[in-house]
Amino acid sequence: MALAKTEASGGVSLLPEVLAFSSSLWLDKQLLTEDLVGSLAHVTMLARTGVIPAADAKAIRKGLLDIAAQSKAGTLELPDEEDVHMAVETWLSKNIGASSGLLHSARSRNDQVATDLHLHVREHCARALEGIVALLGDLLTRAHQSKEVLIPSYTHRQRAMPVSLAYWWAAWGAALVRDGELFVHALQQADVLPLGVGAIAGTSLGIDRETTRKLLGFSRLTLNGLDTVGDRDFALDYTYAAARLMVHLGRLSTDVIDFTSQEFGFATLGGEVACGSSMMPQKRNPDVFELLRGKSGRAIGNLTGLFATVKGLPGGYNRDLQEDRAALLETGPLLHSSLSICRVGLAHLTFHPEKTRAGVEDGFTQATDVAEALVKKGLAFREAYKKVGALVRRCQEDGLALSKVPLAVAQKVDPAFDEQVLAAAQPAAAVKAKESEGGTGPRSVERQLAWISDKAQALSKTARDVPRLDALLASLEKEQP
Amino acid sequence: MALAKTEASGGVSLLPEVLAFSSSLWLDKQLLTEDLVGSLAHVTMLARTGVIPAADAKAIRKGLLDIAAQSKAGTLELPDEEDVHMAVETWLSKNIGASSGLLHSARSRNDQVATDLHLHVREHCARALEGIVALLGDLLTRAHQSKEVLIPSYTHRQRAMPVSLAYWWAAWGAALVRDGELFVHALQQADVLPLGVGAIAGTSLGIDRETTRKLLGFSRLTLNGLDTVGDRDFALDYTYAAARLMVHLGRLSTDVIDFTSQEFGFATLGGEVACGSSMMPQKRNPDVFELLRGKSGRAIGNLTGLFATVKGLPGGYNRDLQEDRAALLETGPLLHSSLSICRVGLAHLTFHPEKTRAGVEDGFTQATDVAEALVKKGLAFREAYKKVGALVRRCQEDGLALSKVPLAVAQKVDPAFDEQVLAAAQPAAAVKAKESEGGTGPRSVERQLAWISDKAQALSKTARDVPRLDALLASLEKEQP
Amino acid sequence: MALAKTEASGGVSLLPEVLAFSSSLWLDKQLLTEDLVGSLAHVTMLARTGVIPAADAKAIRKGLLDIAAQSKAGTLELPDEEDVHMAVETWLSKNIGASSGLLHSARSRNDQVATDLHLHVREHCARALEGIVALLGDLLTRAHQSKEVLIPSYTHRQRAMPVSLAYWWAAWGAALVRDGELFVHALQQADVLPLGVGAIAGTSLGIDRETTRKLLGFSRLTLNGLDTVGDRDFALDYTYAAARLMVHLGRLSTDVIDFTSQEFGFATLGGEVACGSSMMPQKRNPDVFELLRGKSGRAIGNLTGLFATVKGLPGGYNRDLQEDRAALLETGPLLHSSLSICRVGLAHLTFHPEKTRAGVEDGFTQATDVAEALVKKGLAFREAYKKVGALVRRCQEDGLALSKVPLAVAQKVDPAFDEQVLAAAQPAAAVKAKESEGGTGPRSVERQLAWISDKAQALSKTARDVPRLDALLASLEKEQP
Amino acid sequence: MALAKTEASGGVSLLPEVLAFSSSLWLDKQLLTEDLVGSLAHVTMLARTGVIPAADAKAIRKGLLDIAAQSKAGTLELPDEEDVHMAVETWLSKNIGASSGLLHSARSRNDQVATDLHLHVREHCARALEGIVALLGDLLTRAHQSKEVLIPSYTHRQRAMPVSLAYWWAAWGAALVRDGELFVHALQQADVLPLGVGAIAGTSLGIDRETTRKLLGFSRLTLNGLDTVGDRDFALDYTYAAARLMVHLGRLSTDVIDFTSQEFGFATLGGEVACGSSMMPQKRNPDVFELLRGKSGRAIGNLTGLFATVKGLPGGYNRDLQEDRAALLETGPLLHSSLSICRVGLAHLTFHPEKTRAGVEDGFTQATDVAEALVKKGLAFREAYKKVGALVRRCQEDGLALSKVPLAVAQKVDPAFDEQVLAAAQPAAAVKAKESEGGTGPRSVERQLAWISDKAQALSKTARDVPRLDALLASLEKEQP
Repeated sequence: MALAKTEASGGVSLLPEVLAFSSSLWLDKQLLTEDLVGSLAHVTMLARTGVIPAADAKAIRKGLLDIAAQSKAGTLELPDEEDVHMAVETWLSKNIGASSGLLHSARSRNDQVATDLHLHVREHCARALEGIVALLGDLLTRAHQSKEVLIPSYTHRQRAMPVSLAYWWAAWGAALVRDGELFVHALQQADVLPLGVGAIAGTSLGIDRETTRKLLGFSRLTLNGLDTVGDRDFALDYTYAAARLMVHLGRLSTDVIDFTSQEFGFATLGGEVACGSSMMPQKRNPDVFELLRGKSGRAIGNLTGLFATVKGLPGGYNRDLQEDRAALLETGPLLHSSLSICRVGLAHLTFHPEKTRAGVEDGFTQATDVAEALVKKGLAFREAYKKVGALVRRCQEDGLALSKVPLAVAQKVDPAFDEQVLAAAQPAAAVKAKESEGGTGPRSVERQLAWISDKAQALSKTARDVPRLDALLASLEKEQP
Repeated sequence: MALAKTEASGGVSLLPEVLAFSSSLWLDKQLLTEDLVGSLAHVTMLARTGVIPAADAKAIRKGLLDIAAQSKAGTLELPDEEDVHMAVETWLSKNIGASSGLLHSARSRNDQVATDLHLHVREHCARALEGIVALLGDLLTRAHQSKEVLIPSYTHRQRAMPVSLAYWWAAWGAALVRDGELFVHALQQADVLPLGVGAIAGTSLGIDRETTRKLLGFSRLTLNGLDTVGDRDFALDYTYAAARLMVHLGRLSTDVIDFTSQEFGFATLGGEVACGSSMMPQKRNPDVFELLRGKSGRAIGNLTGLFATVKGLPGGYNRDLQEDRAALLETGPLLHSSLSICRVGLAHLTFHPEKTRAGVEDGFTQATDVAEALVKKGLAFREAYKKVGALVRRCQEDGLALSKVPLAVAQKVDPAFDEQVLAAAQPAAAVKAKESEGGTGPRSVERQLAWISDKAQALSKTARDVPRLDALLASLEKEQP
Repeated sequence: MALAKTEASGGVSLLPEVLAFSSSLWLDKQLLTEDLVGSLAHVTMLARTGVIPAADAKAIRKGLLDIAAQSKAGTLELPDEEDVHMAVETWLSKNIGASSGLLHSARSRNDQVATDLHLHVREHCARALEGIVALLGDLLTRAHQSKEVLIPSYTHRQRAMPVSLAYWWAAWGAALVRDGELFVHALQQADVLPLGVGAIAGTSLGIDRETTRKLLGFSRLTLNGLDTVGDRDFALDYTYAAARLMVHLGRLSTDVIDFTSQEFGFATLGGEVACGSSMMPQKRNPDVFELLRGKSGRAIGNLTGLFATVKGLPGGYNRDLQEDRAALLETGPLLHSSLSICRVGLAHLTFHPEKTRAGVEDGFTQATDVAEALVKKGLAFREAYKKVGALVRRCQEDGLALSKVPLAVAQKVDPAFDEQVLAAAQPAAAVKAKESEGGTGPRSVERQLAWISDKAQALSKTARDVPRLDALLASLEKEQP
Repeated sequence: MALAKTEASGGVSLLPEVLAFSSSLWLDKQLLTEDLVGSLAHVTMLARTGVIPAADAKAIRKGLLDIAAQSKAGTLELPDEEDVHMAVETWLSKNIGASSGLLHSARSRNDQVATDLHLHVREHCARALEGIVALLGDLLTRAHQSKEVLIPSYTHRQRAMPVSLAYWWAAWGAALVRDGELFVHALQQADVLPLGVGAIAGTSLGIDRETTRKLLGFSRLTLNGLDTVGDRDFALDYTYAAARLMVHLGRLSTDVIDFTSQEFGFATLGGEVACGSSMMPQKRNPDVFELLRGKSGRAIGNLTGLFATVKGLPGGYNRDLQEDRAALLETGPLLHSSLSICRVGLAHLTFHPEKTRAGVEDGFTQATDVAEALVKKGLAFREAYKKVGALVRRCQEDGLALSKVPLAVAQKVDPAFDEQVLAAAQPAAAVKAKESEGGTGPRSVERQLAWISDKAQALSKTARDVPRLDALLASLEKEQP
């Protein structure tokens, strides 16, 4: 990256249309706090190592803190520059004078931008973790409330086995825990300080990157400047995590959209979250969940676009990388609004236990359970399955659900069927019996919920341990250069 | 799509966070003119067919035109609604009173949105065609100026055969003509009127879609309402065309970036378009072209995201489709700024003929030409190739370029080499000789440029024939309802 | 592209692992017929223009035709070379001797590969058109059989208005016609002959590309060799068309999967196409349609991958382009098997009119129709909508479907409701009344089907007019060099 | 997933074209070992828990081991079934008779497939780690050999600062270490056992998933069956890691392609890896590296396609998921061949130190170093930069490289320049001075190489600790059921 319009560039100014095209200010002004925090740490380090005089550092620090204060107060007017980094520099130059030039000592736009982006991604990974933890909390509460509710599970969108509704909630919880782990990975990849590698190769001045690292709460330093300035792996990891999470929210949404259709009738969305219609007051359009699902497509596109932008670039810094901004800065708001609205939407989703129960009482989804009951009585599998197959065919001929077949009818099919065996055809019994690890049996589900709860606490701790931008600003304000 | 917060939805208002999440106003206020134009045509048709009273239509028309005027004057204040369509409705309801309710007669948000998007895509396809035509004009001019300039062509980024610089310009012209044709296809797909299919199934009222179609200058009507409201093919075609064009601009950019490197040294970017450095005044960073290349990745992501959003949706309208807005509305500005800045960048790109010529005089890129010269003298190919292979190896041993080998040396390798044959090793002669169709010979290139010029004129005419939003607004203002 | 292991490359042979990595033979042997057809045309042209002796041409032609015959007979053994083009060359060299070397006169691997790929894409576009036309034929037949069947249409996966089942079939027909048009576009982009531009810049030999073009039945020549050898736009257009078509098949599949669920119960899949279960004989898993939907994702990935591969490449030929093979050669089989299986699956899909009718009789989906009936009696819209809103709320309180509300009850809500107005609440009447263009009314649907039929015939003609590989091989066999 | 053609499915057989379309045998026969290993563990557990008789388990185990032995010997003939899992079942049924039916006890195709895929991904993550470690080893060796070689670093593909070639190698090493960490993450996500959750909800039989887990060497069990059978997160993580790694190899390839061009001339590829040309013996086309770059596009497409396939699916198992096979099974060979060929290619890449040195001696890339030298003498930055700017401009006027400017000339520009300061303009001095962490100074680079070496060892250990398929097969053979 380079200076835009100084007299030093041979006295020729960039054309205004070139400046307009190159500008990312409209996007990256979202990075203002990141930029101020990074600069505060840098100037503090420069003063401590003696690279710049303490007085200049003090002036610069005051300027940066003034910008932060004005921004918070809503009174900041940033000059219209190529990007937020230049805008801050120009503001300083106008407001604190000559000292401002020293801020850029032993720093280049390349490592500065990389630092701002690492701060940004780290912050938003932590916020995403908080959002995931909050959503997990809701899922757990709902699961605990619905252990007794029966509902069909689905394969091929055909009714498969009866399960408890708690098991359905736990399934989405399991997926979200994986997303949490993915964001922890993304967080760790972002938790590295680029600042100090300069334009590409380091510096001969006596800087101390360790000091800067501690001031900004990063865990490690980037290893090699040539790699650092051209690397956007952390951005890919972050947008990948976002896409995977959004795909989960979108799949959950498909379930909700189906369950709240007239045909399924398993659940209803409250009017506070479901768009109605003036003429059809009963209508409850699940717009919130359709939008979540639609946004999962967008998240996939953001990842793909970022990948395509990076693909094939030479090593080192290339200005192409500026195009990471669009995907990166769209991702934070996308994540936070989606996680938050998903909680709101689910809070207004009411299941109808009698409807979901009817879905498991009608058909033959418990055939496997009856066969397993025979097996437990000592029959060989093969035999058991044949007998149940015959019973199901008989039920079908008679228009009977498996859970409703009278003992006499069953015994005419095969005397092996007794009351105990037929009891396994009751959906509630079928659910209760599946106590294998990962099964829908109540003790198994209880263990699943406990595990999710433990994981949620661990994710929450990880999120809390991340130094956040506001806290960094406050602590950097107190540092003595 | 559905009403957001009327008392009719059972007296329950949507939660503010749901409204915020669902809102697309921040994006689709860019569709204001499209929406006004579509509504003007609709209300005019409604009055002409007697579906609504003329007096109400008049009031509505006045309201819509007032919004357009205020928007032009910069004084419009749109209410903060879910989307631009609702915002216009609310404005009308406040400003013209009861008549406003009739605007939505025999119309649904579904066909209204589809119409706005078709108008938008048609408009921007036409603008893209104009941009392509302008860029083609520049390429043609440059090509005509550089017929005598020699430059290496490349395969595997290794020097291949000498060509004229005009041939290089013509190559990119050929690609851009294909892009023009692709935008003509996208334009045709967008040139269909959705309005009048209602929410999904048409209407029993006596509307006349043909009238609306003519007022809006569309070529055809959409065929089937169920298909219409769920269809985003036109949006995919448009973002696909954008991605393919951007990839061409990005590949052209790679050539420019390489050619202006110190290593190639074939060309220089003027300081008005190339970012410099205060300490290295000779530096000319090709940021403009790097950004163009980077944006080609973004364009691929926009297409992919739109595809992923549409994938797997049920038939009919699903709110997921609102997520088309992000990709669609980003595409127009992306296209126009990119085509425009590419012209600016190329205008400041100066080739250095002596440098490009040196690139073809150094090596052995004319070996094929010498062999073909032998063939034209009657030698069999196989023999010719063997002899030239031997000559090249001899040159290599002697550290001689093929174009510099003395006759005596060549004849020692093989007496078949005479002056005429060796003349083919002169880059200028090699270029001149390739007069096959599509070749780099001067008459061939002349034909290529003439063909591109014809195509550009045809594309220009297509663009001019598209009814543009401003013109539609003006003509609709004059219509009598 | 370059020779792999001749002594001419300095006596050094490529490492076997490099050859293995570079080889595309396992993929591109699918291009054998394309390669033979292209070479036959090329050698015929070379002889006619006198570039090579007739006797050599005759020998080469015989060799190429022998390969074709052996391939057809299943007796061909291709040497294990880098790609199919080299394998053919090596076969010829072993079997016809010295003449074989002349086949490569005035031709490079670059224009040869491009020609094979253009032939391939043209062929498969024609086959895709045939598949689309056949599927359209089935849709039309089904539509004509189901004009009287009522079914709900859906927005937000909530029941919207009643429509005829014919209208649903027509909707998918409309989408497929657009796909047909897109494949016509892709076909036109592929219908251009690359052969004759050599490695990159043309040739000085007296070839005649027009002769080759006519022999291969292409409509035009590519314009510029530098552009030609680096261009994969035709491949992008083809994989884009494939992705868009597959997304339509996938969305249709979602409808089928939902309609055949127990919850919807609108239709049943025959056991010949629906995977069952040994224990649950009633189970009919819609695997075929799930796979179609799944493959739409794959098609999106193929397009994205091809785009990413091309992105950012320099002009001219780069070996990266060989990676087009994976996406390109996967696309033909994907298209043909998908179009074909979709027909099979739909042929075994049986709708249950009583179930679909129940879906429109239960609720309030005809509220708009009742309001429009009032409007046709002279009421203002606003009034009409308010009255119907009140009626719907009353029905809801009484647990009545709108189509079942007694006249007396309605008149108590508002005296404006009379028998004629209430008749509009009958789903059949509601459907019949929507005769606006694009609506679900029977005459409107009839027009839609006629339009689709016309379009299908036009697409069919386009497909028939494409010179197919088998026919080209036969006609080239008869040519005199 | 369901049985394909038993009499139990109502006596109706699936149509052959449906079977052909649904079949994944051509792809998933690559999963044979995974399937055998999974089944061996399952049947061993079934016998130990008493779910099936020991004698049957013994017969099944023998059958499975026979298949493995025949496969190893190349004599296996698998029946032509829908997929590899059915093919194994059918083989067993033919060869061991009735016992074979018991293998599927308490197991469904859903958890079986998921298990095979987890085994596959875990295996290939381990192999990818080995490949990365081997490549890192090569990079380290090369880096240690090239500490004294100077080369320009690049920003905007313009020469930036001089660096050591070791620093360039270390940069790619840093990227590969990140890839290693990403594969460790993917490995952990795959290191979870799905087997035992049955079709979707667990089982009532007394299985013990812990036993199976230990036999297969997985670290954990999947949590919830409903989640397990519909989850492909581990497949996404794996294809994402592959795409990111491939993008790195592709970017490295761009550097190699550029460096080996005639224009850069920094390095040469040996003829054993670079395709030559019969007529141009000096030609060395970097096909290997172009293909690596091209394949990075394909890898992006595989990820995108998998994402699009999963997007929007309902919870539970959907047959769409079978389409994961194409992307998943392409990825292993892609990774291993790419990592391996990259090593081969780099082993034949010879740098030319005199050429790379010339690249840093020519221009002004050391301007920053001179300024920093002034600063270290006590000048303020601002002053230092101004003075160096003036010096550079003077050099430019005189056509002098900064490293060649005579002391007298420099002092005329400004007396602050002395011998010590000017010495900083020597590229070697400039490189030596940048000893900040991450800089190109020799001690800094030494630390970087040591860190990479440590990381490589840790990655290697992780790979070694993964239970591999061959070892599992051997250990399972020894288990007593």
